[in-house]
Amino acid sequence: MAILKKASISIVYRLKLETETVSFGEIATSIGQAGGDIVGIDIISTGKTSTIRDITVNVGDQADSELIAARLKKLDGVSIIHISDRTFLVHLGGKIEIQPKVPIKTRDDLSRVYTPGVAQVCTAIAEEPSKAYTLTIKRNTVAVVSDGTAVLGLGDIGPSAAMPVMEGKAMLFKQMAGVDAFPICLDTKDPDEIVRIVKAMAPAFGGINLEDISSPRCFEIEERLKQELDIPVFHDDQHGTAVVMLAGLFNSLRLTGKKLEDIKIIVNGIGAAGIACTKILLAAGARNVVGVDRAGAIHRGENYDNPQWTRYAEFTNPDNLSGPLSEVIAGADVFIGVSAPGILKVDDVRRMAADPIVFAMANPVPEIDPDLAAPHVRVIATGRSDHPNQINNVLCFPGIFRGALDCRAKEVNEAMKLAAARAIASVVTDDELSETYIIPSVFNQNVVRKVRDAVIQAAIETGVARKDPGEIKAEV
Amino acid sequence: MAILKKASISIVYRLKLETETVSFGEIATSIGQAGGDIVGIDIISTGKTSTIRDITVNVGDQADSELIAARLKKLDGVSIIHISDRTFLVHLGGKIEIQPKVPIKTRDDLSRVYTPGVAQVCTAIAEEPSKAYTLTIKRNTVAVVSDGTAVLGLGDIGPSAAMPVMEGKAMLFKQMAGVDAFPICLDTKDPDEIVRIVKAMAPAFGGINLEDISSPRCFEIEERLKQELDIPVFHDDQHGTAVVMLAGLFNSLRLTGKKLEDIKIIVNGIGAAGIACTKILLAAGARNVVGVDRAGAIHRGENYDNPQWTRYAEFTNPDNLSGPLSEVIAGADVFIGVSAPGILKVDDVRRMAADPIVFAMANPVPEIDPDLAAPHVRVIATGRSDHPNQINNVLCFPGIFRGALDCRAKEVNEAMKLAAARAIASVVTDDELSETYIIPSVFNQNVVRKVRDAVIQAAIETGVARKDPGEIKAEV
Repeated sequence: MAILKKASISIVYRLKLETETVSFGEIATSIGQAGGDIVGIDIISTGKTSTIRDITVNVGDQADSELIAARLKKLDGVSIIHISDRTFLVHLGGKIEIQPKVPIKTRDDLSRVYTPGVAQVCTAIAEEPSKAYTLTIKRNTVAVVSDGTAVLGLGDIGPSAAMPVMEGKAMLFKQMAGVDAFPICLDTKDPDEIVRIVKAMAPAFGGINLEDISSPRCFEIEERLKQELDIPVFHDDQHGTAVVMLAGLFNSLRLTGKKLEDIKIIVNGIGAAGIACTKILLAAGARNVVGVDRAGAIHRGENYDNPQWTRYAEFTNPDNLSGPLSEVIAGADVFIGVSAPGILKVDDVRRMAADPIVFAMANPVPEIDPDLAAPHVRVIATGRSDHPNQINNVLCFPGIFRGALDCRAKEVNEAMKLAAARAIASVVTDDELSETYIIPSVFNQNVVRKVRDAVIQAAIETGVARKDPGEIKAEV
Repeated sequence: MAILKKASISIVYRLKLETETVSFGEIATSIGQAGGDIVGIDIISTGKTSTIRDITVNVGDQADSELIAARLKKLDGVSIIHISDRTFLVHLGGKIEIQPKVPIKTRDDLSRVYTPGVAQVCTAIAEEPSKAYTLTIKRNTVAVVSDGTAVLGLGDIGPSAAMPVMEGKAMLFKQMAGVDAFPICLDTKDPDEIVRIVKAMAPAFGGINLEDISSPRCFEIEERLKQELDIPVFHDDQHGTAVVMLAGLFNSLRLTGKKLEDIKIIVNGIGAAGIACTKILLAAGARNVVGVDRAGAIHRGENYDNPQWTRYAEFTNPDNLSGPLSEVIAGADVFIGVSAPGILKVDDVRRMAADPIVFAMANPVPEIDPDLAAPHVRVIATGRSDHPNQINNVLCFPGIFRGALDCRAKEVNEAMKLAAARAIASVVTDDELSETYIIPSVFNQNVVRKVRDAVIQAAIETGVARKDPGEIKAEV
């Protein structure tokens, strides 16, 4: 079975070319033959007999990059000045910075933003703590908290190595929704300690985005923080994935005309994301959800080592099915995969009900190659940006926090998550909706605004908004 | 005794003026008579018979502001639209923000700064942890950590109310030295907990600036963090004040021709700043430092409730003087005040040796009114921006962290602090040096560069720089 190869990497070759000796055609041919795809050329300098150029090349992996370098070295008239990886280049020195909102130009400015003038502002907050929302960064600032134990598909790589993901998240928060987010990567795996730390840090923040914390610790940490803090706490790996999955499923069902209450749904991979997907499906009205993991269908009457599974069986799998994925998938309308590469076979898909909907969201390599699945399904979605229907939680977290911050929500509750899923789905109009367009692009400007408005509405309706509707700014 | 009044506040009155009924002269007169000083006028809109203007007025305190408003209301043809305080205006929504360094414009950009491309960068750091310095914000980022227990002169006002000071500090770090600083205000006063939290957060940061933590907890917290972390830990209230004081004293001694080894120095106020000032004075070569607090001169043979004082007596006060300030100040060359308003009397100053040097650094109201002291001293310095010779730790912390980060120092040691003090002093040339110019302005562009270079040199010489001299960029 042809599993997709890993995401390509971009390499920049800075070359000095003797223009009388070598043609660019020869270089392009060499790169192409070694498996590289030229995606950009920048001229750095040009002399009478030589020129320096940056050639940006997409390659499959590091080995391809080295093969290209070896071929280029063999060409007469070519010398390699240096080779850099564009992904590493963009990370040099980190990806975010802290900026003052106003410059300090005079002593007078200094005396207002710092001592002695700032003392008045401090006193005002000490006397009336809710003023922290107007007079400090709290109103617009979210902590992105991780312990680095479940980073992407990489596992427990620790807090330092998790930083590039959290910095990327902070970039997205700002660019997509104007939210100031700061990465807090913690050098501890103890849930008690993580809870204590986040509680102690909370005064400066308007919300907590938990990220890449391994299961089952993530459940306890989120649950305790939700109970003990009066600001939204949101574990994005669980709820962000669940919200965007549900948005995609709403639109897939618009296509097939089936109803959530009537269909059989397989959720494959019962970790943090799988449990969250299941919970939001049930909250949205689904009745027949069957969870599958290494032990096959999770069912009642079994004594699982993983207590999460035992609990999971209590509120899912109404027919108490057991057996492997290839059996229990028979007659299913929907497959939701949050598990591992290549787990779903074409034969399994063939056993599903009419108009199968397959969300193969394992990253970066899906549960089934979408090109292989395509002939056998009505809708296929993945986590990948190089295929249609990308289930990407970038569609959720910026807007959900924008809404929660703007109405000063105490929490992000189920109603707010459901509202976010409906809002994301609603961005795709009836005219636009198709098998290859069930979910908007991450760059669609309407997503954040619609999610924000829906989240605020749901927060007001469920009584968790602390701002009056009249006070909430209409614009992001 | 005329003690300086507190720093003035700036009020903005937005007025609608009926131009046929009232003249601006009448308004200016009213404001002036009520004690206000008009410092700015902005025209907001102009109609045929009326105009709206923002009048910015400096006043002594809130009562003056209300008096002005009452007078304006009595004038025919004037209506007050609103009154705002400029200091509060500049704080609305906080004073700093998080910015992405590059925009995410395409899917390709997204795949480099976030999944899937970011995984390569995470893996590189997991394999070689020191790469966090090149591939994350660690290289340029400092945590400004406080528990809000000793904020300015306000005392224990808590973490939320401390935020405006920490945000102000972050502004200064960026503007003065290009350092990214983020405020971490902790809702705990337990030294063990604070140490654990800062240790757990440290992977993301290149340095820790402790701020406004009350004595004696600040000593233990700093000492333990210095031992347990491999990045610089610097309690600015202690060492920033001490470094800038020493810079001012170096230049005062250039004026009087006296030597640090030979002079008698009174340090008044033996808390965190006073102990740090004493330590740096001794490290710089002073031999006769006498500490004074509520109990009079701190001397050996006394059993103090405050264990810090008992320890302090061991390494100061060589003649073991006892008695109140007014006695032990006899014959002193230098008075360093880090204590409380109005504690130093003119009669005390008269009892000092020839060419008295008085640093009255209590904030915002000094130990002696500088105008009263002036006729009796050679040099008077304060913490205030409205008098010459402002001892302001803004002169120290940006440059000292810039230097420490640029050479990847493991710590900020005594040699680096002394080097910083000498560098600050050196910014004032022999030609410029005078009784009213012993210390450069906080806006002097040379300060950060000189402090940085000196700190790097000292770090290299004392073996705490982890970067080779050749690798360190020459420019800030």
